[in-house]
Amino acid sequence: MGDKTWSEFEIINRFFRTIGNQSAEGVITGIGDDAAVISETRERPLLITHDMMIEDIHYKSRWMSPYQLARKLVAVNVSDIAAMGGKPLYALLALALPDPMEKGWIEGFRKGLEDALDSFGITLIGGDTSQSPGPVMVALTLLGKNDDGTPILRHHPKVGDTLYVTGTLGDAALGLIILNQKGQSPALTEEEVFLTQRHLDPIPRAVLGQEIASKQIATAMIDISDGLIADLDHLLEEASIGAEIHVESLPYSEAFKHVASHYHESPETLALTGGEDYELLFTSPLPPDRLSFSSPTAITPIGQITDTPGIKILKHGNPVSLDAKGFQHLFHQKG
Amino acid sequence: MGDKTWSEFEIINRFFRTIGNQSAEGVITGIGDDAAVISETRERPLLITHDMMIEDIHYKSRWMSPYQLARKLVAVNVSDIAAMGGKPLYALLALALPDPMEKGWIEGFRKGLEDALDSFGITLIGGDTSQSPGPVMVALTLLGKNDDGTPILRHHPKVGDTLYVTGTLGDAALGLIILNQKGQSPALTEEEVFLTQRHLDPIPRAVLGQEIASKQIATAMIDISDGLIADLDHLLEEASIGAEIHVESLPYSEAFKHVASHYHESPETLALTGGEDYELLFTSPLPPDRLSFSSPTAITPIGQITDTPGIKILKHGNPVSLDAKGFQHLFHQKG
Repeated sequence: MGDKTWSEFEIINRFFRTIGNQSAEGVITGIGDDAAVISETRERPLLITHDMMIEDIHYKSRWMSPYQLARKLVAVNVSDIAAMGGKPLYALLALALPDPMEKGWIEGFRKGLEDALDSFGITLIGGDTSQSPGPVMVALTLLGKNDDGTPILRHHPKVGDTLYVTGTLGDAALGLIILNQKGQSPALTEEEVFLTQRHLDPIPRAVLGQEIASKQIATAMIDISDGLIADLDHLLEEASIGAEIHVESLPYSEAFKHVASHYHESPETLALTGGEDYELLFTSPLPPDRLSFSSPTAITPIGQITDTPGIKILKHGNPVSLDAKGFQHLFHQKG
Repeated sequence: MGDKTWSEFEIINRFFRTIGNQSAEGVITGIGDDAAVISETRERPLLITHDMMIEDIHYKSRWMSPYQLARKLVAVNVSDIAAMGGKPLYALLALALPDPMEKGWIEGFRKGLEDALDSFGITLIGGDTSQSPGPVMVALTLLGKNDDGTPILRHHPKVGDTLYVTGTLGDAALGLIILNQKGQSPALTEEEVFLTQRHLDPIPRAVLGQEIASKQIATAMIDISDGLIADLDHLLEEASIGAEIHVESLPYSEAFKHVASHYHESPETLALTGGEDYELLFTSPLPPDRLSFSSPTAITPIGQITDTPGIKILKHGNPVSLDAKGFQHLFHQKG
């Protein structure tokens, strides 16, 4: 009686098949076969990443719409390709949905996915759907390439390199605090809306990442998803080197500077440990005055690589300590 | 106090990093960077598939161990690559796990994953982990290639082609009925164990799929995951052709023939509509006596492609009808 039903097979076929240019360069077979098929027309390595978002873990449905969820799913995956200096090209979508779904959920999600994939020129080439026993789970496998064929890896920072970050830090973490307290309320101030948008609709540094790669100035690069310190720690892993961060150099947005204290949050702690900014963190032997980019996004030197293992936080030259070390969920094993 | 904890980052790094040959041909950067990087050394298109398994939807933890879950996750993805005639090469793992996890879960899953990936020569090149608010969710992105660079697609069956299936049908569906009624009980008969194993630990036709591709005898191929009729329906999609199936030709295992009636199940319905056999269904202009394979797996002609749209089921030449049309979860939209 007015109920709509779709089979698992139909969901991808009916709603998502037409996203992106299914005859895009390189796509031999997109959605609708056992596997997607992409051609290799040039000798450039393929970048592949996979990231998922799960209801009540990565977001609350009371403050994130299906449209926003789809956009953010694309953004977090594009950010990983950007952190390699690559251009995103092809995506596979995985959906696990409870039954019944909220009216309009699939349509909203589809629109967000299409808008986001289109904005980056990504073609959806496959996917799978399943029922979920509870939470909504969405995931994307994203493939991309570097224009010059040389990805920027995590593991070659050099002692003496300067640490740079793009954009501003802490906005998304503060935005999450606001969302959890107030939701997407019409009572939010303009600055609060800016901060919540930074959490809900992050802009991955796709073009800037490619420009950093093409200029061959970075010795290592990563995107900031877990928080500056946690992700810097990943950069330093497996190397007997360390880093110093000068907290007075951390780039803040005006909104962040004004609003953080209203929520009794330390701007420095948020900027150092808050996750989901999806800015790029990279190291370069070049000093700031030798860097120039066509992107208007700020690029800020925040410290350097040292020969002493570990991460040292300095405030006007004096070491300071922090309580948290970036967002990291810890799993516990029974018994 | 004896509790073990791992961060999300550590789970992939600590438990899964050493699976497969991380310096396998083509792997430039495996686990541990923002994206995996694989090289293209020959002009062969890349096959990509993604399949997930979710607790209480695809399996029950009371009758499937973490070891078996990992093996089956690999098998269902390998089956998709096999259905293209491809060889599986690289995998990315996604895990969403509740906290706390059962003691030994990760270790058991890891062992199953390693055993399965090793048996197919697949290298794990990346992955991501997350907390889950409830069910265990595991997913794999699998990449592969065709040796001769020519995948077998779904959409070129020709009128007059013979329909072939590999192995036997219905075992996995009957195995699932047994598991749901009795679990993995020591009281199961040898035949019941065989059938439950066909559900728990399916053997994807990886080598046979590659042989079918290299001999260039198939006009279309698909793996049977949703059930013979449902998957045949996918083969016929977008073509104004149909198929006839001769039910007396359907290949059954001895165990299936003996046990089905104990569970008051019609062998024909199970074989036609039961899912998860992960056998291959393909069409070929060649008659049975012109087919020969090095694989010992049976290949059985079960019908042919006709110029009448739809699927006709014939029993000794007479049309029969069925209640179910293969496993297909239908999603409902509220309102």
